[in-house]
Amino acid sequence: MKATILIHCPDQAGIISAVTGFIHAQGGNITYLDQHVDKEVGVFFMRLECEFEGQSLPWDFEKSFSEQLAGPYNMEWNLNLDHLRPRMALFVSRYDHCLYDLLSRFSSGEKVVEIPFILSNHLDLEYIAKQFDIPFYHIPVTRDTKAKAEDRQLELLKEYKIDFIVLARYMQIVTSKIISEFPYRIINIHHSFLPAFAGAKPYHAAFERGVKIIGATSHYVTEELDAGPIIEQDVTPVSHAHTVKDFIAKGRDLEKIVLARAVHLHIDRKTMVYNNKTVIFS
Amino acid sequence: MKATILIHCPDQAGIISAVTGFIHAQGGNITYLDQHVDKEVGVFFMRLECEFEGQSLPWDFEKSFSEQLAGPYNMEWNLNLDHLRPRMALFVSRYDHCLYDLLSRFSSGEKVVEIPFILSNHLDLEYIAKQFDIPFYHIPVTRDTKAKAEDRQLELLKEYKIDFIVLARYMQIVTSKIISEFPYRIINIHHSFLPAFAGAKPYHAAFERGVKIIGATSHYVTEELDAGPIIEQDVTPVSHAHTVKDFIAKGRDLEKIVLARAVHLHIDRKTMVYNNKTVIFS
Amino acid sequence: MKATILIHCPDQAGIISAVTGFIHAQGGNITYLDQHVDKEVGVFFMRLECEFEGQSLPWDFEKSFSEQLAGPYNMEWNLNLDHLRPRMALFVSRYDHCLYDLLSRFSSGEKVVEIPFILSNHLDLEYIAKQFDIPFYHIPVTRDTKAKAEDRQLELLKEYKIDFIVLARYMQIVTSKIISEFPYRIINIHHSFLPAFAGAKPYHAAFERGVKIIGATSHYVTEELDAGPIIEQDVTPVSHAHTVKDFIAKGRDLEKIVLARAVHLHIDRKTMVYNNKTVIFS
Amino acid sequence: MKATILIHCPDQAGIISAVTGFIHAQGGNITYLDQHVDKEVGVFFMRLECEFEGQSLPWDFEKSFSEQLAGPYNMEWNLNLDHLRPRMALFVSRYDHCLYDLLSRFSSGEKVVEIPFILSNHLDLEYIAKQFDIPFYHIPVTRDTKAKAEDRQLELLKEYKIDFIVLARYMQIVTSKIISEFPYRIINIHHSFLPAFAGAKPYHAAFERGVKIIGATSHYVTEELDAGPIIEQDVTPVSHAHTVKDFIAKGRDLEKIVLARAVHLHIDRKTMVYNNKTVIFS
Repeated sequence: MKATILIHCPDQAGIISAVTGFIHAQGGNITYLDQHVDKEVGVFFMRLECEFEGQSLPWDFEKSFSEQLAGPYNMEWNLNLDHLRPRMALFVSRYDHCLYDLLSRFSSGEKVVEIPFILSNHLDLEYIAKQFDIPFYHIPVTRDTKAKAEDRQLELLKEYKIDFIVLARYMQIVTSKIISEFPYRIINIHHSFLPAFAGAKPYHAAFERGVKIIGATSHYVTEELDAGPIIEQDVTPVSHAHTVKDFIAKGRDLEKIVLARAVHLHIDRKTMVYNNKTVIFS
Repeated sequence: MKATILIHCPDQAGIISAVTGFIHAQGGNITYLDQHVDKEVGVFFMRLECEFEGQSLPWDFEKSFSEQLAGPYNMEWNLNLDHLRPRMALFVSRYDHCLYDLLSRFSSGEKVVEIPFILSNHLDLEYIAKQFDIPFYHIPVTRDTKAKAEDRQLELLKEYKIDFIVLARYMQIVTSKIISEFPYRIINIHHSFLPAFAGAKPYHAAFERGVKIIGATSHYVTEELDAGPIIEQDVTPVSHAHTVKDFIAKGRDLEKIVLARAVHLHIDRKTMVYNNKTVIFS
Repeated sequence: MKATILIHCPDQAGIISAVTGFIHAQGGNITYLDQHVDKEVGVFFMRLECEFEGQSLPWDFEKSFSEQLAGPYNMEWNLNLDHLRPRMALFVSRYDHCLYDLLSRFSSGEKVVEIPFILSNHLDLEYIAKQFDIPFYHIPVTRDTKAKAEDRQLELLKEYKIDFIVLARYMQIVTSKIISEFPYRIINIHHSFLPAFAGAKPYHAAFERGVKIIGATSHYVTEELDAGPIIEQDVTPVSHAHTVKDFIAKGRDLEKIVLARAVHLHIDRKTMVYNNKTVIFS
Repeated sequence: MKATILIHCPDQAGIISAVTGFIHAQGGNITYLDQHVDKEVGVFFMRLECEFEGQSLPWDFEKSFSEQLAGPYNMEWNLNLDHLRPRMALFVSRYDHCLYDLLSRFSSGEKVVEIPFILSNHLDLEYIAKQFDIPFYHIPVTRDTKAKAEDRQLELLKEYKIDFIVLARYMQIVTSKIISEFPYRIINIHHSFLPAFAGAKPYHAAFERGVKIIGATSHYVTEELDAGPIIEQDVTPVSHAHTVKDFIAKGRDLEKIVLARAVHLHIDRKTMVYNNKTVIFS
């Protein structure tokens, strides 16, 4: 069987040797090791892919890891068994480009993720859920019903044992009620520009300034709006010849690709977060 | 002989036909025409390259253009004779990457621009001016001497008949005293990020946020700091594995390429500005 | 009403003036003009967007254009009325990524194109045609049945009045029987690399050489395999850490985006072909 | 003191654990570890940065490494002490862009490399060597003198204890006489295209095909011309509006940036070669 282990701890001498020696002693073979030291904050990060014979880990693996490594080195660590597919909920509103892109990638062929349901505050995209034969929940949100709507969302997330949420152009602010239950497990996508434009109509602002490049950023959702740790970014050139509508169309193409890449990185457990910053092992 | 004409005016029917008919009637041949309508503001832009027989334009060309076109269509227009090389002053401080890049491009081979002098508030780069045999002026700037320093700069700019100024990492704010004499004729380069980071140490801020892309923007200098019309932008990917020092090194590479492209566009008269926004004819 | 006119002819003095004067005299207003001279071959290209009052062009527009312009200047020209939506046939085999991408772009929202049918030599993707409620034709192709299959394809293309064909990863060679009926109206997508790798398994060859960038190219189909005029290209970085499978996955993302952009350019009549080379007006 | 160790060997269980345990036992601290398994060929690659107290490695470090690791695991390995600056010879012909770029990067500021001399088959760039106060050797090459010229080159390379050679647009084929003395230690830069164009005038061929992207590739020189292991690549967009001259100018900008990046990677010992393919640890 295969497992992926993520570790971070204060940087100190001998960690790599200790961890790799431990895996070796437990009968595992390390097939991939990625490691990073953030020298600014003195934190060590490691991601290991290991193979073990048989259908399960050694019976005392987790206990031994805790006693021999996590305790002494003050580690936070995380163990993922590769045969367990993570369960992803999709939240959408009215834009269909990210939804279509994710569904056409992840619903067919060799599945790497389960999509137990799609949730929306609007009915517009219900037909797509039907096309792909995935349960669709319509939970409208108004100022008055927001708290109640989030309760219902939480119920569904628990009922379906969701591991992480993808906001595929979900045009509502997700509050701490949900965020606190899914720390660094809610993935959002938004536009971004060089330089940045705040406000309600960023594409219009970028157009007015005459930017030559537009971008998209996928990040984990935190309490501070659109300021969570960045998972993936990309850009595309534009010119004066493009209208605001062209900007938005090019933005859509970026958004769907960047979001899909971020989701892949999350599923592959290639993302770690520390101090509101990601370490992305590629 | 060859000429490049830049025009902008309120958008209206028949402009292209009128202008091209006029050039034709004057005995000119249009070898390139670029045109753009900014529908948001209702402004028409055109750039024409024309060829005329002989060593000069028809004697009444400018007068006729004014009477038959500029007046009736309410045009602002600008005529450039291609055999006249523009004169570029370089302002630098201590960073040498943009200076080296511009000098190695423009001082050798087939010249498209004159570089009458290099000016700096520091002595660090004087040796490079000597390497390339270009006059170097050292004008230190302190809070107290700023006004006087700018007077001296203006003197030099006039004495050398400078057409436009390139701030090749000149680390002083250029004030309206200079800007008003060189409207949309001072080119600056600065870093930019997705999303943007203001403040004194942007590379550090971008590093702390864990951005995956850094960029550089070249723009015309206006009264509002770093908010002038954008001429050119580009980006490069970064990751958690890069240090702040790596960010800065990658930023330097971007800055020199983006600035050089902006200078080329300016020299080729491919830039027009309206409402703080560029139209870049490529 | 709006019309888009595409022109190419031997380069000569006065063309722009003549054409714009003609449109003006016919009561049209030119809203966009793009022009290009290929000096290597001495050919002039122009693309005009014009607006005319009323529901149709002046009754003698085409005749007059031919007599006053096309004849004297030896032009090939092409008139497109913007309210007529082009009809696009999709040919596919077993890969679904390009098909999904095109359908999710073009089948919903404001349509700019009609998709009368999807055709495949396999049954694998029939379910997607059903999802989007578009007729699906299964025409298997073997060495023996190839000629007959192409006859059937031609029948369908004529029956449905198809304007252009998109090979959305159609894994059969299209022969001159079809190509000659749709000159520069069949759009294909294929991978491309720096440097190029020929042969049956290009991703494997690129992987073995350790390339750092892979690409995709969309082009018009001509008799010479994969050597037709290029419409659009893009690239993405790869590294030694990527497997052949990763290369292929990244290739898929490129292919769908590049093909979609090429289809958009074709629909917007922004492509012209001369001497096996495109002029793409952006 | 700091050291960088590069290792490759047949892939097998326990290598990482064995190596990191060894470094630890020798009193070293691993500050960076990069590792890669090429599963196609079953080869394990590792790059370690280590710190040791004091001014030198433990006296038996190399012997012990060989006995305990290199022997048993059948490793090829390579030890670099970070305080020793590599010595780089620059070979040039008539193009100055790469030479200027490398000199302005590496001759000033904090040196990471020594540049003992510049060598050329032409005199054109001698003045640049003088600008930067670096010895310049003019060794003309004709068909008749080629062998003798290479003998003289080898003499200089040995006399100056050169570690690696950069062909900064050196327009002569380097033969096996030199290559065999500097295996994977000669770095070249050349243009590359999507798709590729062979022959004497690749920019012209690319222009004629109407490519939309041009690129540059830096690679180690091997016996097979321009087919050595790729170190770095990059691309830039072009269009029909660009002339062959524009293609070449854009190519120059790419070439200098891509070559500089490749040289940096080599100096930082981030490149490994196996089976004509690089592993680049970034």
